Amino acid sequence: MRAMACSCATAFLYGSSEGYRPLRELIAQRAGARGIRLDVPELVVTTGSQQAIDLVARVLVDPGDRVAVEAPTYLGALQALRYQGADVVPVPADTKGISVDELEAVVAQHRPKMLYLIPNFANPTGCVLSLGRRKAVLSLATKYRFFVVEDDAYGELYFRDPPPPSLFALANDEERQWVVHISSFSKSLAPGLRLAWISAPPELLRHLVVAKQIGDTHSATLSQLVAFHYLNAGSLEPALSRMRMFYQRQAYALQRAIKVELGDTPFRAEMPEGGMFYWADIPGVDTSAMLEHAVSRGVAYVPGAAFYADNPESTRIRLSFASASAEQIAEGVRRLGDCIREEQERAAQRNVRMEQSS
Amino acid sequence: MRAMACSCATAFLYGSSEGYRPLRELIAQRAGARGIRLDVPELVVTTGSQQAIDLVARVLVDPGDRVAVEAPTYLGALQALRYQGADVVPVPADTKGISVDELEAVVAQHRPKMLYLIPNFANPTGCVLSLGRRKAVLSLATKYRFFVVEDDAYGELYFRDPPPPSLFALANDEERQWVVHISSFSKSLAPGLRLAWISAPPELLRHLVVAKQIGDTHSATLSQLVAFHYLNAGSLEPALSRMRMFYQRQAYALQRAIKVELGDTPFRAEMPEGGMFYWADIPGVDTSAMLEHAVSRGVAYVPGAAFYADNPESTRIRLSFASASAEQIAEGVRRLGDCIREEQERAAQRNVRMEQSS
Repeated sequence: MRAMACSCATAFLYGSSEGYRPLRELIAQRAGARGIRLDVPELVVTTGSQQAIDLVARVLVDPGDRVAVEAPTYLGALQALRYQGADVVPVPADTKGISVDELEAVVAQHRPKMLYLIPNFANPTGCVLSLGRRKAVLSLATKYRFFVVEDDAYGELYFRDPPPPSLFALANDEERQWVVHISSFSKSLAPGLRLAWISAPPELLRHLVVAKQIGDTHSATLSQLVAFHYLNAGSLEPALSRMRMFYQRQAYALQRAIKVELGDTPFRAEMPEGGMFYWADIPGVDTSAMLEHAVSRGVAYVPGAAFYADNPESTRIRLSFASASAEQIAEGVRRLGDCIREEQERAAQRNVRMEQSS
Repeated sequence: MRAMACSCATAFLYGSSEGYRPLRELIAQRAGARGIRLDVPELVVTTGSQQAIDLVARVLVDPGDRVAVEAPTYLGALQALRYQGADVVPVPADTKGISVDELEAVVAQHRPKMLYLIPNFANPTGCVLSLGRRKAVLSLATKYRFFVVEDDAYGELYFRDPPPPSLFALANDEERQWVVHISSFSKSLAPGLRLAWISAPPELLRHLVVAKQIGDTHSATLSQLVAFHYLNAGSLEPALSRMRMFYQRQAYALQRAIKVELGDTPFRAEMPEGGMFYWADIPGVDTSAMLEHAVSRGVAYVPGAAFYADNPESTRIRLSFASASAEQIAEGVRRLGDCIREEQERAAQRNVRMEQSS
């Protein structure tokens, strides 16, 4: 409301491709408070982080170029990279994030132009890249000369402790020449505003601004004004505090429901320490094949296979606890349990038939 | 305000890539009233018409593909087409728009994948494509199988009479398979909302939606809600009436100033019948070279050369009468006159020197 009342003229006019300057200043200021040195000229507002990823892909990737990603990783990034014709090379990750040894093997062999990763409460795994691995990734980037595109969409949604500093913050001057930092208001403020930002070394940033101009001239001024006034009023920090508690409660509700409803199934998952996703494994169950049954029972999830560039792990599943109520979560997990048990029964029957026919 | 009051939840949430359904319905309804049959499923909201053009370029153009454009044409379209690696082939235009004979020669020889044009009050020329030529362009599109991308950013900003029906409206069922229609709220409502829309044959539209998802997921929901409530309240038609009168007054103010201040210069221009641009010729003056002097005197314009894919006409100039006051327009043109006279003097001195040295 205030955005429209105070800055009516500005809110509806053309703006600069880099974004509304006062908003960029507040973003840089907040990042500074989190230990991330962001200079305003190094910072461009984008129409959501999807655009930021797409801009990086458009600027850096030529058809056939290799790009390394964690496996599994964010579907929208895989799509944007492939749309530019990238040859996406997956790197295995565990609960501490991308494996540094595997990464070095991949970059030494494939010499990718960039590595895309979500260091904090990753989508879909919820994992956090450890401090040691962050430093190792930066060293590898300098050694093998590839850009690290760090997508920090979820870093502020920690339940208890903040994650380690961002790669952008950890990088020394040399390493910083290889780091692209993306962050977003979609999880912390509102996705419908379509606002994120990107920071990159100066030459790369110039190319990103050209791609941004060509892509949509600039992001919606009205959204930028709303975000500016929200931040300027100091409303974001208390909202984030509430959000952290909210998502933690949601995660606990999901954890409880899993314990109660899925104890007799092979469902395996660890409670995440932030973000909005539960990444699980259901050995013996093809979650893509199960989706239709689940949806017909009114419970939705994303089959794990969607998050792999290749060799999908078909028994993986991503559950979101972002928006359902505790009751809905409990009921959803109950129905999911029914689906899993049915799938197991079907699989058992198939096995019996196969044994009979052999 | 109302958008935020009524639909607070929706305004800040993720939306569909195709756009906010009630807004798409109102857009289709308004288009229908202008004789343009637009079905809601055929209509996708974009982040300004720049994104619409960029999406078309991304979907249709592979590096080296030929794309025909009017010469001169919108700089942002040239940039988007070239960014995809298009081989842009200019087609001469006159005061009635693109030359049909020249177009047929170009398409027969180069077999472009698409033709981009602005049929109404074109940027930069202000010209309107005649009804006969519209029909001829549609016939050529079907005959030579190329897409006609019609960018109707200015069609509602006529001073007296509406322009002929859009190509999308004129097309028969066969021709319609080759027409892509783009229109925008940037000129009629507010550029800062970054809202436009695109309509295309179903298969092409599916590809455009994929590119849209990859590009920015969806356009800002808040902007879409504002546009919806503005249209729904019936506020756009009276605003457009006022805008038409306003731009006409502005154009007259510029015409008067040109008459008074530039009568003794070679400046030549015809008053446009709509839109927001005056396209002029200043024989003997390189408008790109003159820009720096003009800006240092506080008057800005776009040198004509910017609007040509090749062989720029360096004596052309685009003046905008969109936002300056009548006084500013008069003063700006007075200063422009000073610049022109100085350029002429400089050119005369150069000629004298060249004669002396030869």
